[in-house]
Amino acid sequence: MIPQPLQDLIKRLSRLPGLGPRSAQRAVLHLISNPMEMADLDKSIQTVMGAVVTCSTCGNVGLETPCHICTASNRDGTTLCVVEGVDDLWALEKSGEFKGHYHVLGGVISAIDGVGPEDLNIPGLIRRVEDGEFKEIILALGASVDGQTTCHLIARKLKPLGVSVTSLAKGMPVGSDVDYLDGGTLALALQGRREF
Amino acid sequence: MIPQPLQDLIKRLSRLPGLGPRSAQRAVLHLISNPMEMADLDKSIQTVMGAVVTCSTCGNVGLETPCHICTASNRDGTTLCVVEGVDDLWALEKSGEFKGHYHVLGGVISAIDGVGPEDLNIPGLIRRVEDGEFKEIILALGASVDGQTTCHLIARKLKPLGVSVTSLAKGMPVGSDVDYLDGGTLALALQGRREF
Repeated sequence: MIPQPLQDLIKRLSRLPGLGPRSAQRAVLHLISNPMEMADLDKSIQTVMGAVVTCSTCGNVGLETPCHICTASNRDGTTLCVVEGVDDLWALEKSGEFKGHYHVLGGVISAIDGVGPEDLNIPGLIRRVEDGEFKEIILALGASVDGQTTCHLIARKLKPLGVSVTSLAKGMPVGSDVDYLDGGTLALALQGRREF
Repeated sequence: MIPQPLQDLIKRLSRLPGLGPRSAQRAVLHLISNPMEMADLDKSIQTVMGAVVTCSTCGNVGLETPCHICTASNRDGTTLCVVEGVDDLWALEKSGEFKGHYHVLGGVISAIDGVGPEDLNIPGLIRRVEDGEFKEIILALGASVDGQTTCHLIARKLKPLGVSVTSLAKGMPVGSDVDYLDGGTLALALQGRREF
C-alpha cells in the first residue's frame, strides 16, 4: 500500500542506529512535508560521500588522510590515546584536555557480538608504537567488561615495546551523588582515593 | 573539531522526528563506516524527491495526483474517512477494513502547539462533501482532547450539509486486560456496551 519508493526509504532509514521502522516512517513523512529539508539532507549526504575519508594512520574521519590531528605539528608526539570509535575521539577533543595523538580501534573485544582481537586495528597500533616516538599509550576504552578485557590484551602486547601504558581513572563522575553510585564505581573510587 | 560536512549532516539528521543530536551523530558514523548503505540511502532520497507527490484531492502521498485511492473505481464512493496524517491513512489501509475514500487534515487543533482550524485542510473537506456523493463521513482522529475537539468542530461544519458524521468507537483495545485500562477508557467501554 505504501508507495515503493517510500517503503525503500523507510527500510533504509530504519537500518540507522537509533531508528526503528516506526520512527523511520515518521521521519519519511516529515521529509515529504518539508521538501526543502529533504533536499538539504540529500545535499549533505552527497557532500559527505564526496569529501569525507578515513585517516589511514589513526582511523579518524576527516577531509584528508592523514587527518589534521595526525599531521598537526603543535600536538604532543609522545602520547597516543587509544579509543574504541570516532565518537570517543570527538568526545575527548571536545573536552580540550588531550593534546596528543589518537588511534581508533574500531570496536572492543566482545564475546556476545562476536568481535575478536583480529577484528580490531591492533596491528596498526603496534606498528605505530614500534615506528613512532610515543612514550605513553593511554587506553581510553569503556569501563565495561569488554572495554577492560581489550585494555588488558593491548597492554600485554604493548608493554614489551618499552612504552608506558595507562588507562583512564575510574571513580565518581562529576556532578554525581555518593548515594546514587553503584557498588563497583564506589569500590574503584575508594581504591583510587587521593590526598586532598 | 568535527569536520564541517559531518556537522551539517548531523544537524540535518537531528531535525528528523525521533532523532536527537546524539543519535544523529551515531547514525552519521554508521553511514561513514558503511559507504554502500550511505549510497543506497542517497539514491532512495533522490527517488522519493523525484517521484513522490501529495494528492491534491485527499492529501495522501503517492506516485501520482490524484492518488490511486482517489481514482480507484472499486472503492466505496459514499464514505469518506477523515484522518490526521498520512501515517493514519496507512494504518487504516493496512487493517484492510475500510474501502472508502480518505481526507488527510494535516493535523488536529492544538492550543499547546498553536494549531488552529485555519491550519488544517477543512475547506478542502467541506468542498469535497459539497461536491461529492458522500453519505457518511467517518472522523478517525485520535482519542485525545485535541483529536476530539477537532471532531466536534468538523461535525458542526459538516452536519448542515446533510451527511451522516460518525467517529471511531472508543473502548477496550484488542488484547487488553480490564484491570490495566484507565478509568476514562473503561467509562467509554461501559457506555458503548453492546448485546452479546
